[in-house]
Amino acid sequence: MNKVKVGILGATGMVGQRFVQLLGNHPWFQVTEVAASERSAGKSYGESMFGRWKLPTAIPESIGNLVVKECVPGLDCQVVFSALDAEIAGPIEQAFAQAGYVVSSNSRNHRMEPDVPLLIPEVNADHMGMIAFQKRNRGWKGMIVTNPNCSTIHLVIALKPLMQFGLNKVFVTTMQALSGAGYPGVASLDILDNVIPYIGGEEEKMERETLKLLGRLGEGKFVPASITVSAHCTRVNVNDGHTECVSVKLEKKPGIDEIKAAFKAFNPLKGLDLPSAPDHPIVLREENNRPQPKMDRDVEKSMASVVGRIRECPLLGYKFVVLGHNTVRGAAGAAILNAELMKVKGYLN
Amino acid sequence: MNKVKVGILGATGMVGQRFVQLLGNHPWFQVTEVAASERSAGKSYGESMFGRWKLPTAIPESIGNLVVKECVPGLDCQVVFSALDAEIAGPIEQAFAQAGYVVSSNSRNHRMEPDVPLLIPEVNADHMGMIAFQKRNRGWKGMIVTNPNCSTIHLVIALKPLMQFGLNKVFVTTMQALSGAGYPGVASLDILDNVIPYIGGEEEKMERETLKLLGRLGEGKFVPASITVSAHCTRVNVNDGHTECVSVKLEKKPGIDEIKAAFKAFNPLKGLDLPSAPDHPIVLREENNRPQPKMDRDVEKSMASVVGRIRECPLLGYKFVVLGHNTVRGAAGAAILNAELMKVKGYLN
Amino acid sequence: MNKVKVGILGATGMVGQRFVQLLGNHPWFQVTEVAASERSAGKSYGESMFGRWKLPTAIPESIGNLVVKECVPGLDCQVVFSALDAEIAGPIEQAFAQAGYVVSSNSRNHRMEPDVPLLIPEVNADHMGMIAFQKRNRGWKGMIVTNPNCSTIHLVIALKPLMQFGLNKVFVTTMQALSGAGYPGVASLDILDNVIPYIGGEEEKMERETLKLLGRLGEGKFVPASITVSAHCTRVNVNDGHTECVSVKLEKKPGIDEIKAAFKAFNPLKGLDLPSAPDHPIVLREENNRPQPKMDRDVEKSMASVVGRIRECPLLGYKFVVLGHNTVRGAAGAAILNAELMKVKGYLN
Amino acid sequence: MNKVKVGILGATGMVGQRFVQLLGNHPWFQVTEVAASERSAGKSYGESMFGRWKLPTAIPESIGNLVVKECVPGLDCQVVFSALDAEIAGPIEQAFAQAGYVVSSNSRNHRMEPDVPLLIPEVNADHMGMIAFQKRNRGWKGMIVTNPNCSTIHLVIALKPLMQFGLNKVFVTTMQALSGAGYPGVASLDILDNVIPYIGGEEEKMERETLKLLGRLGEGKFVPASITVSAHCTRVNVNDGHTECVSVKLEKKPGIDEIKAAFKAFNPLKGLDLPSAPDHPIVLREENNRPQPKMDRDVEKSMASVVGRIRECPLLGYKFVVLGHNTVRGAAGAAILNAELMKVKGYLN
Repeated sequence: MNKVKVGILGATGMVGQRFVQLLGNHPWFQVTEVAASERSAGKSYGESMFGRWKLPTAIPESIGNLVVKECVPGLDCQVVFSALDAEIAGPIEQAFAQAGYVVSSNSRNHRMEPDVPLLIPEVNADHMGMIAFQKRNRGWKGMIVTNPNCSTIHLVIALKPLMQFGLNKVFVTTMQALSGAGYPGVASLDILDNVIPYIGGEEEKMERETLKLLGRLGEGKFVPASITVSAHCTRVNVNDGHTECVSVKLEKKPGIDEIKAAFKAFNPLKGLDLPSAPDHPIVLREENNRPQPKMDRDVEKSMASVVGRIRECPLLGYKFVVLGHNTVRGAAGAAILNAELMKVKGYLN
Repeated sequence: MNKVKVGILGATGMVGQRFVQLLGNHPWFQVTEVAASERSAGKSYGESMFGRWKLPTAIPESIGNLVVKECVPGLDCQVVFSALDAEIAGPIEQAFAQAGYVVSSNSRNHRMEPDVPLLIPEVNADHMGMIAFQKRNRGWKGMIVTNPNCSTIHLVIALKPLMQFGLNKVFVTTMQALSGAGYPGVASLDILDNVIPYIGGEEEKMERETLKLLGRLGEGKFVPASITVSAHCTRVNVNDGHTECVSVKLEKKPGIDEIKAAFKAFNPLKGLDLPSAPDHPIVLREENNRPQPKMDRDVEKSMASVVGRIRECPLLGYKFVVLGHNTVRGAAGAAILNAELMKVKGYLN
Repeated sequence: MNKVKVGILGATGMVGQRFVQLLGNHPWFQVTEVAASERSAGKSYGESMFGRWKLPTAIPESIGNLVVKECVPGLDCQVVFSALDAEIAGPIEQAFAQAGYVVSSNSRNHRMEPDVPLLIPEVNADHMGMIAFQKRNRGWKGMIVTNPNCSTIHLVIALKPLMQFGLNKVFVTTMQALSGAGYPGVASLDILDNVIPYIGGEEEKMERETLKLLGRLGEGKFVPASITVSAHCTRVNVNDGHTECVSVKLEKKPGIDEIKAAFKAFNPLKGLDLPSAPDHPIVLREENNRPQPKMDRDVEKSMASVVGRIRECPLLGYKFVVLGHNTVRGAAGAAILNAELMKVKGYLN
Repeated sequence: MNKVKVGILGATGMVGQRFVQLLGNHPWFQVTEVAASERSAGKSYGESMFGRWKLPTAIPESIGNLVVKECVPGLDCQVVFSALDAEIAGPIEQAFAQAGYVVSSNSRNHRMEPDVPLLIPEVNADHMGMIAFQKRNRGWKGMIVTNPNCSTIHLVIALKPLMQFGLNKVFVTTMQALSGAGYPGVASLDILDNVIPYIGGEEEKMERETLKLLGRLGEGKFVPASITVSAHCTRVNVNDGHTECVSVKLEKKPGIDEIKAAFKAFNPLKGLDLPSAPDHPIVLREENNRPQPKMDRDVEKSMASVVGRIRECPLLGYKFVVLGHNTVRGAAGAAILNAELMKVKGYLN
């Protein structure tokens, strides 16, 4: 099989580096282009990352040798993964879609637009049906698909199997990792021996994206789920892995064992053999002090959401903890999985 | 004025050390006895703490020279502050109360007993009225008064001024500091680059103690408040200072400004001149990323609860963050303030 | 090829867990026995580690199903890897050697004994020649081989290629990781926002073990190297990976480039194809702020020593930094590599 | 006594904030001006620091109300304390000296100039004699005095009492705190679970400044001490407090007890009653695991150097550990103490 040629926009940032790491040896995709906002003309990716590469694994050699390009159409690839800063992502991603590229974006800019799928393959694969409308509306030869915010995605994966029980209220408090803020991101003086109980825009994203993700695709529009979500978001001194304390109201009042069974049974991608899909999108832990970022963020190639401490909540009925890797499943890995789904569904030809 | 003679039970642990630190130069109380569970006969407190003292200030000289005694009645003092482990605190504290001592305890053992005040001077000073019943019931010459759990106390101080608005639902997620687990407590390998989403017994304490504290004193019994509380408790890599994300339902639907005004106006101890009382029990911060443990735990001699981020909650109506020092206001300082209240109310003669 | 049956003594501690992790899928060795000091009769390793397993990878299934035995001869295996505490390791390891087992020990007890090889395959493989004397002296059917202390091993691997330049003085200051202290080890309250400039016995080990390792095997005795070593050892808030700042005196005064070339050329095990041997025992970094624990501890399957910042020293001539993983290359991995060398050298039949 | 009017240049950075904190209630100095590099015209210091103030104590009210000025002469004060970045400090400080101000600078720019005192009052107060030459050479009405680098100062304070024993070789490895890098300084992703074995320019400063500080004032020039210093500098995950492992050669080979006695006896400022001077510039700890940043940085109002672990060194003869606060004694507090010395010596009229 010929591999699909892909490019990475914003390849030098933290999420860009994750794309490089995860795509270095991908069975379906071949990275043929890396692009970044600043000019690095004439420099290879390896050279330009000297002293700036922040992952403990080495830069894949084939990518290290690529010359860094600017983020403008003309790249030799079919798909572009976007790890661009929100300040610049909007018009750049649109220019690529206009020019015929398939854009799989981790940026927030287009997530809530009415004709752009906000996609988690295990949750709302059918939302891809919006693409036909998108291309028509926009007059684009290409398309834009987005993945959710890094804290939203793990919440929503955990909520999806609970929809069958009449989910209608969600309370979530997050303890989010440093890598979610990019690099240099949070100053060490601000977080050592500290908690920062605020992340700009994050609570709003969790409260809105969740409704679109768990909603349904109507006739040319997304119908948001009838759920109320309240989010408190905090930053803690952890490298990778967002921890989320969740309470939910389920109208059908299932037993704790039914909920556990629903989490275990959840595997909508089974049989599709997507290379980045976890064997189990939800991993259940029975120890009373799990999941924990250091112990659980890297299970299933860092692509699972790990759930534990399922118990009763005096207010809403049920409490649990969900945890997942924020720059893999919560960013680069999510966008790659979206592209893999698009491939098997025929959106890449 | 002659100072009241006081002793410290469990003087070698983390909370015991805080008692020693805070009482070293107290205007009303003089530490005449230090006692610990293990035998240290013949050793001074200073000697027995060589290499074990964990606070950055030095041991007060007058206390360092005291000989450590065993935790049995016979100590030369009127009040004993108890920092004993819950495993042994119950019968020891009762023996002291029986023998005529005033016991101000930080241990959890007697907190929920029907004739023992669980006291925060700013919140439920009238609960001291139970002491008469307690002495009669138990046939004690002395008495036991307790202070709440270190995470409960800051929550309840923040909730008290909201009672006027018809508070009836509370959602709280805590991010608790390491010193709350005592010494050696949490292993460094367990918490570096990590969050532990579980603290044994803590959620139950917050859900139950809150109701007693905000309840009223009926005829010889405490009538719990009609409030539902749901707590998620986690441990984070912070030395001191518990951070709590709170959502509340207030039936009277006040404006955000009314709530801020209520927090600012809250000062029930004004005029009593208790030495350990903060000038303002609630400090309000307006920055969107405050309160933070490192920045706010030590305001007002570490005796305030610091509140910030008051905003709307889609589910319950109002959200905010409250933070406070867990071994000062949340433990030793709370027990000392209780004893100060007892002195001005005539319980120490 | 039939795999060699091996057992792990002290399999439940931090180093024991590393042995389990590293041997779970070893091409030459099959773990047939796990033993621990406390009685766990009837329990499988997996059960007995519930809530105690501290590594982010899962327990290998084949080992998780083994029943935990006591640490006495009678185990069904040829080799035992010892991760026992020094308090008990001495007589237990001797009993196993007496009974005919090959003991590859990470414990410090026998390291400095005159007839026990203290072995790093890349450094002093010829020291295995002592085994014949050991068996004769002790009347053992089996044998004991040891690996050095976790901070010594990385220092010595870096020093070995410098011996050709007339190495005779070594100054080293270590910044050692928490996992080196075992579990629960260092209390979080002691190390958060702190450095502990003391590790009991560590400086003495580095100053003495280095001389034996770099010495030569004479007629039935080890002749220590004529080198003076001074060590300062400290504990820092790092999970894994010891960082060491080193100054050396080299009589032949090579150029910096000659030293770099010597580090790069160092590969004494080349061609032996030992499964745990790194492709390059010394990895050289050119960035001025490397090596760093988080970035470099896991290179070469965590089995390399990573060297950087080679520069002039006003006092001794040359300075550099060396870093390596302390529980893999510095403990369990070292003992496994020793056993692999023993296999190819015919000590396991 | 009328207080001396003082200003702070670079008042918004980390060291600038320390100046504000330490001078808020100074018995001799009154802050009448705060200046910063960026324009904040019309804003008070309090306003301009909203969300930027990084110390846990509040901004002193009298300073918070001052209007921030630009860093150009014309300020209403006699002394200016400089916390300016090295990129801009040089010409600005010279302009102030030219215009008649007494400049007490923490910046590195003028430290090694042949007519500028690099001053530690306890170490080389006589170096102030250079001021007469400086004024003549430069034609300045004012003057510039500097304090050393934050890691140099604690080393040199510990070395000074050893000069009597024939000190001639010094080996030092530092583990430096984050606040030494300013704000935002070190990214949290770079230091959590990590050590950075490099601080740009730091080793050179320690190796050179030490010689000037311990040297003597000759006829119009400084004669550097005949000592060789070798420094390794690293960054660790600590808020405040630099830890330094030191080995020294002392020709007169004193006993360990003689060294301890020399440290204890060291108190050259005794009787001068400088407000910021510690009662004991060197505090000696006898525990084998002290000094530690968290426990010892704040002793003596954060103005002491704390020494411990004095023992033999196989290479140079003696080893010890010294620790001190890097932004108080190592920066702002040092410059203030220098100005206090200048006042009692008659340099401020």
